[in-house]
Amino acid sequence: MPKKLGNVLIGQAGGPTAVINQSLVGLVETCQRNARVDRILGAVHGIQGVLQQRLVDLGRESRKTLEAVATTPGSALRSVRKKPTPEECERIQKALSKLGVRWFFYIGGNDSAETAHLVSKIARDAKDELVIFHVPKTIDNDLHATDHCPGFASAARFVAMALQGDEQDNRSLPGIKIDVIMGRHAGWLTASSALARAREDDGPHLVYCPERVFEMSAFLADVDRVYKRLGRCVVAVSEGIHDAQGNLIGAGEEKDSHGNVQLSGTGALGDLLAATIKRELGAKLRVRADTFGYLQRSFAGAVSPVDSKEARRVGERAAEVALSGRRASGTISIVRKQRQQYAVSYETNELERVAKEQRRLEERFLAGSNGVSPAFIDWLRPLVGKLPKTQLLSDFPFDAG
Amino acid sequence: MPKKLGNVLIGQAGGPTAVINQSLVGLVETCQRNARVDRILGAVHGIQGVLQQRLVDLGRESRKTLEAVATTPGSALRSVRKKPTPEECERIQKALSKLGVRWFFYIGGNDSAETAHLVSKIARDAKDELVIFHVPKTIDNDLHATDHCPGFASAARFVAMALQGDEQDNRSLPGIKIDVIMGRHAGWLTASSALARAREDDGPHLVYCPERVFEMSAFLADVDRVYKRLGRCVVAVSEGIHDAQGNLIGAGEEKDSHGNVQLSGTGALGDLLAATIKRELGAKLRVRADTFGYLQRSFAGAVSPVDSKEARRVGERAAEVALSGRRASGTISIVRKQRQQYAVSYETNELERVAKEQRRLEERFLAGSNGVSPAFIDWLRPLVGKLPKTQLLSDFPFDAG
Repeated sequence: MPKKLGNVLIGQAGGPTAVINQSLVGLVETCQRNARVDRILGAVHGIQGVLQQRLVDLGRESRKTLEAVATTPGSALRSVRKKPTPEECERIQKALSKLGVRWFFYIGGNDSAETAHLVSKIARDAKDELVIFHVPKTIDNDLHATDHCPGFASAARFVAMALQGDEQDNRSLPGIKIDVIMGRHAGWLTASSALARAREDDGPHLVYCPERVFEMSAFLADVDRVYKRLGRCVVAVSEGIHDAQGNLIGAGEEKDSHGNVQLSGTGALGDLLAATIKRELGAKLRVRADTFGYLQRSFAGAVSPVDSKEARRVGERAAEVALSGRRASGTISIVRKQRQQYAVSYETNELERVAKEQRRLEERFLAGSNGVSPAFIDWLRPLVGKLPKTQLLSDFPFDAG
Repeated sequence: MPKKLGNVLIGQAGGPTAVINQSLVGLVETCQRNARVDRILGAVHGIQGVLQQRLVDLGRESRKTLEAVATTPGSALRSVRKKPTPEECERIQKALSKLGVRWFFYIGGNDSAETAHLVSKIARDAKDELVIFHVPKTIDNDLHATDHCPGFASAARFVAMALQGDEQDNRSLPGIKIDVIMGRHAGWLTASSALARAREDDGPHLVYCPERVFEMSAFLADVDRVYKRLGRCVVAVSEGIHDAQGNLIGAGEEKDSHGNVQLSGTGALGDLLAATIKRELGAKLRVRADTFGYLQRSFAGAVSPVDSKEARRVGERAAEVALSGRRASGTISIVRKQRQQYAVSYETNELERVAKEQRRLEERFLAGSNGVSPAFIDWLRPLVGKLPKTQLLSDFPFDAG
């Protein structure tokens, strides 16, 4: 019987997703099966839980509970938005050492990868045999070195389904409809709204991503042109649209603990755009704005089956690689195989590859100033899965004769 | 072979729902099977289409198309928010007569029932044999003389599922979360958020319906109390909350063509409540507000199976009763049978019973100033259907020894 080498610690960080618990459960179940793992601990609220000694025993969770947790949205271990100071990173390393933690898994985005990277360096300098793995998640899909991130496809599915319904709503009662979609620096999720289109005249008719400078005058001209052609206009706008100087359009001033301006959770941008359209294009226009907000990342009814499966597999793979002893640190990337049929492999990458920097929507996926390319739709479709079909009436003409 | 007695005309009005096309298809298919019906016309944009002669031939639609339309959200015939003048009602009656319309079906809420009632009276005075039936739909559930309205349960399902996810999101990153829910005068949909609760400490922790006067100071005290107990607070608020004088909290000034203040499609109320909490309870609190907006009524991924079936049946029943020649006008009510197992019957009622007036959330369904009663949950559950199960971790304590 192999000797127990130490304990596992798992934490979750950043904005939750609909499938982040799949990764958690993938980690726990893989560790439960490994004879060299002694205890499996969970840090409540990520590194905050490490610093404050708020720990739970995940190893005792039954398979039944874990499988039910896996399909529950949100971060079951509870999350944190905290960028630790160098001093806190040292405290974290010491706390892990004291807890007998040999493997630390941190499920999160690029900020979490950066935290993992810092703690990893401290451990190496201290000759601590700690193994640290980052497990990617983000609805924003803004991590480098991966085809896509777990969590993104389910949020994209929600957005696409929301636009499918919104398109029918706007056909019913025509007007100008603005949908504000999450994604601070990257337009992946906003662009995903275009997957809702099934017909030439389907919305969203205009899609504004933060990869492009947003010019209000061009926006107004775009809306006017579509409205004149179709008698209505559905617009998808990223919460992160900004002017040429980088100033966010309609943003509040609140910042989170990473120093990022808080964009989600207010209707300010949508209301500003709606008011501007009414002022400039006509006060009698029917203009409405919805800000999708937190529903995008936590709605249980729009999970992508591919996303769900991949999130689980990414957790399992992180545990497998870390426990194999082949590497002291790393993150898991999803690599898409160049095949007719969608298929991926899971590879290990350096933490530096995903830490700090954000991956923006690629140029080849954008079209002009207000659209996405067919290549983007081809890339996105297998991730999101089959959408409900919408059907219009044939509108057979009535001939009174 | 029975003689063809005349044509059928169908229109849709008011805000769309996820299942309003089920009623449309129930009407069309029942009329297609009836030998006394000559043509089946559709009025594009309801009575606006009658006045402007925008008509389509629904009778030629294939069963395949109709069945796909039935599961598509939105109003396939396109909708209208128009309260016709007495003069327009006369023009409508004349237009119907000229088109050889013997049966007119209007799918809508209480305003549509009122329109049907007015046209019906004009037809009777003109000795016109026109039969007019109202087919109920509204996500607001504010029609009298029925246990509930088609369209409501699917919107309630969306709201409950949204709150289930939002609760997990708020457990992950604790703070004060405000969700603004549709329902101008009636709290049915806002109250439905409470169905999301599975555990004693689950949100929504506070539910504010327009049937109660909203007092900001009481609201702040409620939030403060919950936050102090749980370290977080999820709040469901109707868009129609108002002060003792009836002034809407945080409402804009735009009015629709029925003279109602436009509440949906802006984030103003949510942002006002969030800002007030931060100002009065602490600027450092994490406070977020989402306004669910139009997603509530048009999301394809949250349709209640019971709602879908009943919406179809209400359309079929309206056609059956109207074509039987037993009544010159009416509306269809859903009557719940007093049984252990959920069951309903469909009955015919006078148009006057549902016209104009709105049905508010019943007193027995409210609890205090910020909650709903167990009786409401018992009433609601069979309509909404089984919700996804959410599961928390057991949080087994970690014993370092």
